[in-house]
Amino acid sequence: MRESKMSSENRYIEDLTVGERWVSEPVVVSADDITQFGRLYDPQPFHVDSELAAQGPFGGLIASGWHLAAIAMRLSVEARSFGGTPIIGAGVDELRWLQPVRPGDVVTLEREFIEITPPRSNRDRGTVRSRMTMRNQRNEPVMTLQAIGKIPTRPQ
Amino acid sequence: MRESKMSSENRYIEDLTVGERWVSEPVVVSADDITQFGRLYDPQPFHVDSELAAQGPFGGLIASGWHLAAIAMRLSVEARSFGGTPIIGAGVDELRWLQPVRPGDVVTLEREFIEITPPRSNRDRGTVRSRMTMRNQRNEPVMTLQAIGKIPTRPQ
Repeated sequence: MRESKMSSENRYIEDLTVGERWVSEPVVVSADDITQFGRLYDPQPFHVDSELAAQGPFGGLIASGWHLAAIAMRLSVEARSFGGTPIIGAGVDELRWLQPVRPGDVVTLEREFIEITPPRSNRDRGTVRSRMTMRNQRNEPVMTLQAIGKIPTRPQ
Repeated sequence: MRESKMSSENRYIEDLTVGERWVSEPVVVSADDITQFGRLYDPQPFHVDSELAAQGPFGGLIASGWHLAAIAMRLSVEARSFGGTPIIGAGVDELRWLQPVRPGDVVTLEREFIEITPPRSNRDRGTVRSRMTMRNQRNEPVMTLQAIGKIPTRPQ
C-alpha cells in the first residue's frame, strides 16, 4: 500500500495509483457541531435538541449522517492530496451509516483508490473511485462509501 | 401515482405504498448559502470565493454536491411526510451530481417510494427505498439518489 504525500504539488490522474491510501487526522465531533448542522439541514429532534434526543430512539444527540459525509469531504479537501487540483465529485455509491456518532466522539477518515479510469480520448478528466471509511475512537466503522471523482489530466 | 399527505399524523411502515410520490416546495440556493456550506465542509475555491471561482473550472461559484444532499435532507424532514416518526437513514445508493447549481438557482426535490421491505420478525423497523431527484428551475435534474430509510412499525 502506498501512502499519499501531503503536498502542495498539483497531482493529476496520471499520478495516481490503485491501492494508494491515506488516513486523516482525528476530528472531534462536538454537540455544537451536531446541532448547528442539524438546525440547518436535518432538523430532527435527535440532531438538534439534547433533551428531546434523550427520550428519542438513540437515547441522546447523534450527528446527522449527512453531517458525517460533509466532514469526510472537508477532511478530503484539507488533506490536499491533489495539491491545488480541484476535487470534482461525480457521485457516490454504497454510502452506509453503520453506527451513531455522539457528542465528543473522535472520527478519522481512511481513503483508498480502488479504481482509476483514464479519460476518454476527447475528455480532459479521468475518474477515480475511492473507498472511504470513517471510524470512531473505538476503531468501529461509522460510515463507509465509494466516492467517484473527476480528476484532470496533466496539462501539456 | 399517489401523492403523500402533508400531515402531522404519524405514519409507519405499514402505511406506505410503492409509487407514493411527493414534490417539495421550490428553494432558492443563494451565494451566501453556497459559501457558508463551502467554508464549513467543502473549502474549495469554486464553493467559497466568487472571484477565484470565476477563473475556475465552472466559471463561477457552484454549490457543493454535499450541500445539495443536505438541502434534500432538509426538504424531506420539513415535509413531515411521516408526521413525527423519525427518518433514520441507513444509506444511499447511486448518488449522482449531474449539473452545477449556481447562486440564485431554484431547486425542487421529487421523491418516490420504489421498494418497501417489512421488518424481519424480530425487528421493529422496516426499510423504505426512495428515488430522489433534485431539479433546477429549467427542470433539469441536478442530482439523483436512492435513499434507504428505516421506518418503524405501528406501535401495538
